[in-house]
Amino acid sequence: MALDLAAIRSAHERIRPYIHRTPVLTSARLDAASGASLFFKCENFQKVGAFKARGATNAVFSLDEATAQRGVATHSSGNHAAALSRAAKLRGIAAHIVMPSNSPKVKVRAVEGYGGRIVFCEPNQRAREAACVRVIAETGATLIHPFENEQVMAGAGTVAVELLEEIPDLDLVLCPVGGGGVLCGTAVAAKTMRPGIKVIATEPAGASDAAESFQQGKLVYQEKKETIADGLLTNLGAPNFALIQRYVDDVVTVSEEAIVTAMRTIWETMKIVIEPSGAVPYAAILEDKVDFRSKRVGIILTGGNVDLDALPWMKI
Amino acid sequence: MALDLAAIRSAHERIRPYIHRTPVLTSARLDAASGASLFFKCENFQKVGAFKARGATNAVFSLDEATAQRGVATHSSGNHAAALSRAAKLRGIAAHIVMPSNSPKVKVRAVEGYGGRIVFCEPNQRAREAACVRVIAETGATLIHPFENEQVMAGAGTVAVELLEEIPDLDLVLCPVGGGGVLCGTAVAAKTMRPGIKVIATEPAGASDAAESFQQGKLVYQEKKETIADGLLTNLGAPNFALIQRYVDDVVTVSEEAIVTAMRTIWETMKIVIEPSGAVPYAAILEDKVDFRSKRVGIILTGGNVDLDALPWMKI
Repeated sequence: MALDLAAIRSAHERIRPYIHRTPVLTSARLDAASGASLFFKCENFQKVGAFKARGATNAVFSLDEATAQRGVATHSSGNHAAALSRAAKLRGIAAHIVMPSNSPKVKVRAVEGYGGRIVFCEPNQRAREAACVRVIAETGATLIHPFENEQVMAGAGTVAVELLEEIPDLDLVLCPVGGGGVLCGTAVAAKTMRPGIKVIATEPAGASDAAESFQQGKLVYQEKKETIADGLLTNLGAPNFALIQRYVDDVVTVSEEAIVTAMRTIWETMKIVIEPSGAVPYAAILEDKVDFRSKRVGIILTGGNVDLDALPWMKI
Repeated sequence: MALDLAAIRSAHERIRPYIHRTPVLTSARLDAASGASLFFKCENFQKVGAFKARGATNAVFSLDEATAQRGVATHSSGNHAAALSRAAKLRGIAAHIVMPSNSPKVKVRAVEGYGGRIVFCEPNQRAREAACVRVIAETGATLIHPFENEQVMAGAGTVAVELLEEIPDLDLVLCPVGGGGVLCGTAVAAKTMRPGIKVIATEPAGASDAAESFQQGKLVYQEKKETIADGLLTNLGAPNFALIQRYVDDVVTVSEEAIVTAMRTIWETMKIVIEPSGAVPYAAILEDKVDFRSKRVGIILTGGNVDLDALPWMKI
């Protein structure tokens, strides 16, 4: 992989006209509760409501003209799907989106709203990949994988560039890990811009393939996953794992209960809407899984797309 | 009443160390949906989660030292109670808070968290006032009325000062009205800073005493009110009504359905948590109650304190 800070900075220039530079928020109350200085990078305020806008836009605008005209395709749990649909529309090309049949309604509506063509499939990773291969064979579209794609990772890494431009003296960055896209981008950017920084990946205990892979030193595939953090139901990608071994300091897991508490606490205290996946780093603080006390901690709030009819604390 | 822009600017100087200058947010999506340019003044991000921090802080820090030492008291539906408790704590004095027994749990917890002493009473305005008189007789505390108080109104008016400093060329400001505190402060500030501006009050149809008072030209008291906008269940104050007649252009009412839709739309689109009362101005846009098209519209999002176990769209 040639993913480096230069690629991430090029991505930033390429996507700047199409994305928000999102704010970094702080909370006196959460600082007091944790004993740390927490800096929340609010990708819930990003276009399409998630950091995924960055990677998808970078990938679509990196294609040469002839390739772009044949369209793009992907399989995604939702935010990447919306992001790719939007990026394709901005470039004036087609987006074919394979989505699991149990995707949250709000994410399905988002893809439709951006003009993506949806192909539903069974809710498992193999069915999704198979359906995607079919669609590509039929259309000639280019696969834009949600995380095993260097341009997607480079785009996602711009989150960390902005965070460190605004708060240069962070001790630690906490980032969720699903497939590993934003984690790899973040780790490469953060470790290059500030070599002494720690980058810790945070993962639901019910979807712990990244933690297991990291501990065992080999890529572990997990068939069954169960977590309300629906953005983190994917298995780690192979290229992502290689980068994680090189750039990430640790991978820690958190309970479902902590994710719900973290999500609810951030809603109630900061008055912002974040999705369960985005709450996983703060859950790691609540469960004391990282050495954060008296430290300056960057937290990637990855997105804010939530089905308001199915909030986790409603499920009694 | 001597409420004028000078009093509001003095309040701003007095409270500046204790409050947030809240951001003004925009949404490309809501602008496209409405055909207007909407500027949301985010008092949901204010200390204690509502604009009430401004008025209560101004009132408490305006007291002379001897008076302050006897403490302060109020009856409130919640946000003013939390705000007064916090302001009293900042000044190191006692706050006695009369609250209706059906107050949202999140608001009760907030008052307790800021060290206020709560006295519960029956959930109607007369019981609240009677309990407050009792508490004052027992303690010698000064009543800080939630809206019939010039210092409270002056503090609340600093919302509009900040909004117009940031977006000077507004055509229109939409503001919720309950007792009339933030409306009066907003109207006086906005009309003085920008004489051509329109100030429109927005009110739930189920708590329409301000609209009726405005239309009839005399203060109308409404015994029964029913709305999910729990911050707007109070009747208009007499001093507030006098200012409204002089400074406010119109009072419009909106349905409960529109309030819920407005609240949910703002959560889903802007990824911010606002309480039902804060959604009332945008509900007026949804129901086409004001002349907003192609205009630059300031919207006061008054607060973000919501009981996440009892969201309005859960109540089927």
